[in-house]
Amino acid sequence: MAKGFTLWFTGLSGAGKSTLAQRVRDILLERGLKVEVLDGDVVRQNLSKGLGFSKEDRDTNIRRIGFVCNLLTRNDVVAIAAAISPYRAIRDENRKLIGRFVEVYCKCDLDTLKERDPKGLYEKALKGEIKNFTGVSDPYEPPEHPEVMVDTAAEDVDTSVAKIIAALEEMNYIPAAAGGEYSADEEETIKRRLQDLGYI
Amino acid sequence: MAKGFTLWFTGLSGAGKSTLAQRVRDILLERGLKVEVLDGDVVRQNLSKGLGFSKEDRDTNIRRIGFVCNLLTRNDVVAIAAAISPYRAIRDENRKLIGRFVEVYCKCDLDTLKERDPKGLYEKALKGEIKNFTGVSDPYEPPEHPEVMVDTAAEDVDTSVAKIIAALEEMNYIPAAAGGEYSADEEETIKRRLQDLGYI
Repeated sequence: MAKGFTLWFTGLSGAGKSTLAQRVRDILLERGLKVEVLDGDVVRQNLSKGLGFSKEDRDTNIRRIGFVCNLLTRNDVVAIAAAISPYRAIRDENRKLIGRFVEVYCKCDLDTLKERDPKGLYEKALKGEIKNFTGVSDPYEPPEHPEVMVDTAAEDVDTSVAKIIAALEEMNYIPAAAGGEYSADEEETIKRRLQDLGYI
Repeated sequence: MAKGFTLWFTGLSGAGKSTLAQRVRDILLERGLKVEVLDGDVVRQNLSKGLGFSKEDRDTNIRRIGFVCNLLTRNDVVAIAAAISPYRAIRDENRKLIGRFVEVYCKCDLDTLKERDPKGLYEKALKGEIKNFTGVSDPYEPPEHPEVMVDTAAEDVDTSVAKIIAALEEMNYIPAAAGGEYSADEEETIKRRLQDLGYI
């Protein structure tokens, strides 16, 4: 049985893609899966040095990540990509190439991102000091039907991580946690049912 | 036990890297291993579009292949690279990064390559129509201590393939062929011994 799949995080800079990718990786490693994270910054260093932020260069960068994710996925590795990947068409190209593809939309409103702004990038972008900055001076096309949507402005990291893991379990991409016969969502459903019935 | 390793073919254009890579891949797949071939041409299309043939661009290209080979190798996949990779230092960088690294030097003298020249590249290069052509107008630094050396001007494809497979078996990177308890070399030794003893 194929074990590999690609978990593709998309969203604006600062929306939490890298943080969630690392947290999910740790959980999947604990469950005995093989996992590689392809983070936007690492990829720009190792696969895409020299590429800029024009639409063409962004597309090339995202296709390259897709190419590597595909090599990993078809060899039973979970490939986790964390890259802004602003254009829907190129994400969908990768989905088509890879097949076993789970898109996670890291939603976060611009006001929250401007407030967080740990690297001061949004401030610079708003002043015009950084050009082609996604969400400010460059487009972002949110997924229309992502497998998972997390809203990192409204929910904490643990909640987002739990949502992603539950979705992967439901889609049978990963086995349920050792010792637990039910996924988090299933357990919640069971608990509510038991409460409704007056048992707990 | 780690199953992955990188089999790195280096040599001039037309020396037989791609042919040998594919033949070895087929044998390793038959033995139940996971294998990916990263061929120079495919890589130039999918990972290195836009790069040229200056020393800097060649180095970047070879480092990228090394980066991907490393991701595959550490996840139990046999990564087979087939790229001219003319510079010793960059090949050695990849060796250091990857660890489980087997270098195959595809040797072939220039006269033979000029005769073969199926794509007419050597002819064009000698006329100066292609610049930076390795072996003609650009340097090639042969490996000093390759794990395997094949001379494709002097030996046929089957011989070269057998040498590579025997070396991988001897280094315990791959199990011996199903049904055979001994590697080809070991069998040869046993056969000679039996002959010496007068048994066969």
